[in-house]
Amino acid sequence: MSETNPTAGLVVVGNEILSGRTADANMSYLGQALGALGIRLVEARVVADEEASIVEAVNALRARCTYVFTTGGIGPTHDDITSACVAAAVGRPMERNKEAERRLLAFYPPEKVNEARMKMADMPVGAELIDNPVSVAPGFRVENVYVLPGVPRIMQAMFELLRHRLKGGAPLRSKTVVCYCGEGEIATALGAIQKDHPGVDIGSYPFMRMGTPGTSIVFRSTDEAAIASATSALLEETRSRGFETDEQMLA
Amino acid sequence: MSETNPTAGLVVVGNEILSGRTADANMSYLGQALGALGIRLVEARVVADEEASIVEAVNALRARCTYVFTTGGIGPTHDDITSACVAAAVGRPMERNKEAERRLLAFYPPEKVNEARMKMADMPVGAELIDNPVSVAPGFRVENVYVLPGVPRIMQAMFELLRHRLKGGAPLRSKTVVCYCGEGEIATALGAIQKDHPGVDIGSYPFMRMGTPGTSIVFRSTDEAAIASATSALLEETRSRGFETDEQMLA
Repeated sequence: MSETNPTAGLVVVGNEILSGRTADANMSYLGQALGALGIRLVEARVVADEEASIVEAVNALRARCTYVFTTGGIGPTHDDITSACVAAAVGRPMERNKEAERRLLAFYPPEKVNEARMKMADMPVGAELIDNPVSVAPGFRVENVYVLPGVPRIMQAMFELLRHRLKGGAPLRSKTVVCYCGEGEIATALGAIQKDHPGVDIGSYPFMRMGTPGTSIVFRSTDEAAIASATSALLEETRSRGFETDEQMLA
Repeated sequence: MSETNPTAGLVVVGNEILSGRTADANMSYLGQALGALGIRLVEARVVADEEASIVEAVNALRARCTYVFTTGGIGPTHDDITSACVAAAVGRPMERNKEAERRLLAFYPPEKVNEARMKMADMPVGAELIDNPVSVAPGFRVENVYVLPGVPRIMQAMFELLRHRLKGGAPLRSKTVVCYCGEGEIATALGAIQKDHPGVDIGSYPFMRMGTPGTSIVFRSTDEAAIASATSALLEETRSRGFETDEQMLA
């Protein structure tokens, strides 16, 4: 993707991801959804439910990226510390957000209201709410940091509601060519094609299917003409060497 | 897990993970496999195929962790730069590793040998090989950094061969109790139980099944008696409040 496209960083908060108990599903969703907006996800960090780790990751990525997203750690329990850590990272005090409080009080029957649940309305001063159409408790944005929950179906529903607020870049195109040869057979040619097409990210992913080696070559760029040129160069190489190929237009 | 257990960091190298094209499968495998050895995965970073990002991630994690693992970026193509980046991170020159070269030359028929493939034998000076029982090209260890491929079945086979070299800690036990109530109902009690059991990591994971809310409470520690005590405290709370529970011994 172009160097001028906006960038994003992701902080996945959760001991359960690091222990392997739960496989993260938010990274690939956000990578794709941001890419479709022309925003390049440049780094993701998975950190434990510990203040120092969360603050450090948020600060490292918000200094480097146009947008930072966090997932996880915004529920009612003792291990939900993301909101307070984001407040610490941006140097703002926490407060009970009046509108978030109103929504929670409207949602829970009076006998279900308790301090642990109301803690979900505590946010950094100046936070802008992100609507939660599934379970009401809102996320928030403060500066360039977007704080989302970890449960994938809730996170995704909330991202759909906030995506129009993000300023995207030129849309990212990608094209995949499958070559039926080992990646070592075309590595030298691919290196030369990459050198000739600096505006295209060329990725090479080997596979083995039914005992036959193959390589998926993925071309990604905002410049369709450059993708077409790089693809032609690859197909010329594979044709001249008798390797079969298969083209897929994915996005 | 105990503060005295060894720790690990993971650097996942790959544009394809960040773009969402490929879902990472190595993090949860390594989180579980390391946990079984009593080694706590404390942070994972997913970085692009760019030297500065890889070097920074390796150096940040190797300073903080007992072990660092990298996955991805050690094949024959232009985007495979992990080995050179790890050499830069530890401040050692690259060289063609004689034993790795011998293995590659023994594996490929002469007409399949080319410079791109032989590049897979280039490693930092002093690298110790990690055997690859699937596709021969070895990984390596240098200082406390273990360099592994990205293809999950190959990475896993290689990890199985190197795990006996790692010095583990007291084995980690975990116990899961499923409570049939919203997590906000037991959040206050759980916070108190966590305070009374500082040696146990208590995680709370809400779910919704067939329209009924529930919460999985996961207790993790090297101290079985502490897990049993924390579990009893939770069950006393849920019994007194009439919430149904279900206990699962997972590991």
